[in-house]
Amino acid sequence: MELVLVRHGQSEWNRLNLFTGWHDVGLSEQGRREAAECGRILLSEGYDFDVCYTSYLKRAIHTLNIILEEMDRDWLPVVKNWRLNERHYGALQGLNKAETAEKYGDEQVKIWRRSYDTPPPELTEDDPRNPRHQAQYRYEEKPLLPLTESLAITVDRVVPYFREVMEPEIREGKRLLVSSHGNTLRALVKYFDNLSEAEIMEVNIPTGVPLVYSFDKHFRVTGKKYLGDPEAIQARTASAESVGKTGGK
Amino acid sequence: MELVLVRHGQSEWNRLNLFTGWHDVGLSEQGRREAAECGRILLSEGYDFDVCYTSYLKRAIHTLNIILEEMDRDWLPVVKNWRLNERHYGALQGLNKAETAEKYGDEQVKIWRRSYDTPPPELTEDDPRNPRHQAQYRYEEKPLLPLTESLAITVDRVVPYFREVMEPEIREGKRLLVSSHGNTLRALVKYFDNLSEAEIMEVNIPTGVPLVYSFDKHFRVTGKKYLGDPEAIQARTASAESVGKTGGK
Repeated sequence: MELVLVRHGQSEWNRLNLFTGWHDVGLSEQGRREAAECGRILLSEGYDFDVCYTSYLKRAIHTLNIILEEMDRDWLPVVKNWRLNERHYGALQGLNKAETAEKYGDEQVKIWRRSYDTPPPELTEDDPRNPRHQAQYRYEEKPLLPLTESLAITVDRVVPYFREVMEPEIREGKRLLVSSHGNTLRALVKYFDNLSEAEIMEVNIPTGVPLVYSFDKHFRVTGKKYLGDPEAIQARTASAESVGKTGGK
Repeated sequence: MELVLVRHGQSEWNRLNLFTGWHDVGLSEQGRREAAECGRILLSEGYDFDVCYTSYLKRAIHTLNIILEEMDRDWLPVVKNWRLNERHYGALQGLNKAETAEKYGDEQVKIWRRSYDTPPPELTEDDPRNPRHQAQYRYEEKPLLPLTESLAITVDRVVPYFREVMEPEIREGKRLLVSSHGNTLRALVKYFDNLSEAEIMEVNIPTGVPLVYSFDKHFRVTGKKYLGDPEAIQARTASAESVGKTGGK
């Protein structure tokens, strides 16, 4: 049993170094190229899928669409769910590093970025960024929608969704492709690799590189590998790390 | 209760004037522009949707993706089903008008194009174009997959699918957008407008123009309209008609 995870390519806001979170911004040209390359790698390595999962955010959806187009698999079923969204960045969404530091102080910003369980300030109820007011969440149970999230809170929505919805499909023999976000995938990696809170904060997942997990029949992890050219993966991991450091998640 | 139908934009094979059917060819540049314009019209007319339906064929899937991107509705759920595929053109798929006339004679080709219930020659079991050998249909019940179709056969797969799957959703109040194909949409129009076999053969649906049906609580049709500039619709209908006449479906 295998599972393939992909972190979306560079977005317009990654490029501008803004806290993105649930803000719905599109891919940059570079992001589109990363997604296409990811599709070509999966195709040349002989991968195929039965079901695809992605978030409600277009940078992950478009990454998936581009991968499927490259693989000539446009017809595969795609499940979209907000539980696979990026970590919600609360009141920091839309701010850049300089603005954030000015408003809240350098030390505080470091804590929000590096701590496992300290969420940024909540959105106020009437903030237009509040997902409870946004069209894509109109049929969701409002109290479940976050106003901010730490990585801990993100883990608590991503991992149960994986266990309840995706894991049973993998156990049935279905081949899943997941196109999602840095912290969403961190949540899954923490779960699969049984990492501590400190350890997962050190993990940086490169954009647009297929990450393949293998499981035995008891759903224990038996293998983990990135596909593609090792040098390119190294470069993309370093870039993910630097984006993490400057706050542009 | 309303339902919006869209015929995909021009494909690469429409342009080359080849019988397409279930052959999975992409949109031309013009087709992409038609899809984007369709999305802008739906947005400016204030339309919104809850669920989208499309076929297994990328010209319809990409048309839908482009519309959703224009409407900032990438996150809407999309259901893909082969029952919304174009009419299967059997052994004519991939041939152009001249080749077809040479191989089968002008009179015979006219019959296949203009008759309601005479299907073109079947694909042979071992033909690579046989959907029973193609990846996208690997989990379908093989005997249901056609080797050729008349419009009558197409109606017999499209209308039951509509009645069993889509109509209940519309009755529940869901707003559906369907991105599909000329003959698939003809099947639905025949059903909604209660047209005779002769009448439906005269109907030409323009590409990339939203066609809106309204229903009362008994699911009787109470209205039908195309959205957008009437002159553009007229031109696109004439072009659909001429494509139909030269065989490039």
